[in-house]
Amino acid sequence: MPPLDARLPKGMRDFLPGEVLKREYVIGVITDVFQTFGFEPIATPVLELEETLMGKYGEDAEKLIFLARHPGGKEDLALRYDLSVPLSRYVAMHENELVFPFRRYHIAPVWRAERPQRGRYRELYQCDVDIVGVPDMSADAEMVSLVTTALRRLGFADFTVKINNRKILIGIGIYAGVPEAQRGDLYRSVDKLDKIGPDNIQAELRESGISEDAIRRMMGLLEMRRGNLDSLRALGRELEGIAPAQEGIRELEEMASGMDALNVPPENYEIDFAMVRGLSYYTGPIYETIITQPQNLGSVTGGGRYDDLIGLFRKQSLPNTGTSLGIERIIDLMDVLDLYPPELTGTVVQVLVTVFDERTQGDSLRLASDLRAAGIRTEAYLQPKRSIGRQLQYADRKGVPIAAFLGTEEIAAGTVKFKRLRDGQEIVTPRDAAAQTVRDLLEG
Amino acid sequence: MPPLDARLPKGMRDFLPGEVLKREYVIGVITDVFQTFGFEPIATPVLELEETLMGKYGEDAEKLIFLARHPGGKEDLALRYDLSVPLSRYVAMHENELVFPFRRYHIAPVWRAERPQRGRYRELYQCDVDIVGVPDMSADAEMVSLVTTALRRLGFADFTVKINNRKILIGIGIYAGVPEAQRGDLYRSVDKLDKIGPDNIQAELRESGISEDAIRRMMGLLEMRRGNLDSLRALGRELEGIAPAQEGIRELEEMASGMDALNVPPENYEIDFAMVRGLSYYTGPIYETIITQPQNLGSVTGGGRYDDLIGLFRKQSLPNTGTSLGIERIIDLMDVLDLYPPELTGTVVQVLVTVFDERTQGDSLRLASDLRAAGIRTEAYLQPKRSIGRQLQYADRKGVPIAAFLGTEEIAAGTVKFKRLRDGQEIVTPRDAAAQTVRDLLEG
Repeated sequence: MPPLDARLPKGMRDFLPGEVLKREYVIGVITDVFQTFGFEPIATPVLELEETLMGKYGEDAEKLIFLARHPGGKEDLALRYDLSVPLSRYVAMHENELVFPFRRYHIAPVWRAERPQRGRYRELYQCDVDIVGVPDMSADAEMVSLVTTALRRLGFADFTVKINNRKILIGIGIYAGVPEAQRGDLYRSVDKLDKIGPDNIQAELRESGISEDAIRRMMGLLEMRRGNLDSLRALGRELEGIAPAQEGIRELEEMASGMDALNVPPENYEIDFAMVRGLSYYTGPIYETIITQPQNLGSVTGGGRYDDLIGLFRKQSLPNTGTSLGIERIIDLMDVLDLYPPELTGTVVQVLVTVFDERTQGDSLRLASDLRAAGIRTEAYLQPKRSIGRQLQYADRKGVPIAAFLGTEEIAAGTVKFKRLRDGQEIVTPRDAAAQTVRDLLEG
Repeated sequence: MPPLDARLPKGMRDFLPGEVLKREYVIGVITDVFQTFGFEPIATPVLELEETLMGKYGEDAEKLIFLARHPGGKEDLALRYDLSVPLSRYVAMHENELVFPFRRYHIAPVWRAERPQRGRYRELYQCDVDIVGVPDMSADAEMVSLVTTALRRLGFADFTVKINNRKILIGIGIYAGVPEAQRGDLYRSVDKLDKIGPDNIQAELRESGISEDAIRRMMGLLEMRRGNLDSLRALGRELEGIAPAQEGIRELEEMASGMDALNVPPENYEIDFAMVRGLSYYTGPIYETIITQPQNLGSVTGGGRYDDLIGLFRKQSLPNTGTSLGIERIIDLMDVLDLYPPELTGTVVQVLVTVFDERTQGDSLRLASDLRAAGIRTEAYLQPKRSIGRQLQYADRKGVPIAAFLGTEEIAAGTVKFKRLRDGQEIVTPRDAAAQTVRDLLEG
């Protein structure tokens, strides 16, 4: 039989070992931070009933959902499109087994049939964290603390969490005198401020049919768009008497006082009234993180309070605030900014135990077994007929840092020779000091 | 809008946090052992092209494959059914980027539309480990060392890796005089020896039309079926002159000498000529692990040498030996045998920092932040209007081991009070000794 064509579906990826190790490093650091903040993991199946997903994402998004079926089965299934709708279904199904407030994280793949392009994949990991059941702003403050802690632990230094509140956006619309039906257009334009600049914003607003007077009032507000608690108070004076705005401002003040108590570095966040976020479902504070140095590298986290989410599958909704970390983007940026630790050499192996010939193979295997028992990640070269040169070439191509040699001389003397391949340093050491010598060489 | 029905597809599972923590514990221990043996992780997509999977598993298995499609797309897709065919495709596609011998592990879900029943799921994790490119029996010896190490690390003490060789089975067929066409029936019957006993085996063999003489010779061999190297040598004398048997015996001798060098405990393995394993594709040594105490709890690992696997998508195959750990079964048995460590209390949280009222909330959040910075998994209770009694009830329901209290008294004195909920032990400690006190209480 001729060999079959080995191909991957469009937009799907295999990962080489070194790539998996990098992905697992990022996921490991984030998981550790989530757990340190007292968030619990959940898991849901990849396949959901089609009816569970449909009608939740809007028509354009729905077109991207992969459908599945077992030919002999009766169920119409779909591959999950995000982790939010499954969370909503999960809480409704398991509310009697869960303890509220329910703090959960979920790091898992989702599927979206987007047009494949650089940095966009059809199977991609999402990383969501939510607090279900807490209306207090301290929950939103914790989200910002969580995000800044995770990014700093990964090595990101220059980033800004931009914070706004949907209620303030509503207040701004009222203040400018924009009728409710036009506010969608208003927010869409405002959201593009950094991209297209104030002149183009004004032009867009005019095209949407928003009055000159409203545009003038709007542009005045946008000049004070960015800052800290002071700018929040200034906005409060300007929007006096507009109830949603006042409530939104009070919420952000509470949130800021929580962030202060949680030691969120002030240089890592700012309040930005012009930050809107695409999805229209948020109901309170919203936040998103931009990597700012060496240049604006775009958004790596986004979230907010969305008090209606849990109500999709449940008579009464529950207060909910949460955030997503753009884990695929973070994984890519870690490479761009060279943030992976040097131990991630592309292989798990710390020592390759070479083998001289068939008669000494038992000793080589015994050494490998001893090193493993001491916790050293050890590969035994298993083909004694191959030359030591070829074995070292193998270690070199894989990026293994240390090789071990057990010739008849070493065996007779009860020793072993280690060589650090990067600089050629050799150490001959008694067999019972082997693991310690490896540790020293790895650290040196 | 009335709330939607929250349902799961047939045979699919959600996992509660405590269950996820148990699953991740098992996967973590196994991953750690795999890496200690120098195996590298790979990842492949959940969706493969339908043509990649079809024609590989036999008709009965193929019927269980879930098919997928994006309605606007042109590709016929399928959810992966195992991790072996994806490995074969992966090696063919990436052979120029991989270094051989290629030692890989892969722990990931697969989908099978089996009839749902206790212990059988439609989305299940598989856990595979393979050495591609090594014809030597030391590779097979490493597989047994790996399996015994992983099971012992998980806490299993009483188990037996049964070892046989396809070549010996062929030799036994020749010795008994069973024609090649009937040998499938022969092996199927022999495989059931432990289940149905020798009398029923004889009856089955007769029904298959195997001659009385062949049955008599067969039953004689089966009496020496089980043991160590001695029984292997006795079998060798009995099967003298039968080339495949002699080769199979020599291979197992080499393998046993490798296992000895790798310190595989002799009580954890035995050679068993009557162990067949279902899949007919094995070409050399085969091995499977039975949990033997407190009773025979069935097989938890299975594998063998399968030198044709890599040839599915590649002109020339490569020698390959590998094993699967039945991870879903292991996860269930860990509960049955009570092997999970006591730290797996069902929650990640080690300390719940309670909050007295809104004025002291900043102090409570600050304590939580400090404990987190010290690596303690800490939840801050975020609703200051709820009574301390209710907060402690929450900690109790979740299984949180320690609660922290920061009343006005403690705040004024610069202290914090911790209470271990299991035994009520209380300690008041200076704020800067808080993390150490938590550690002491967790260990005590």
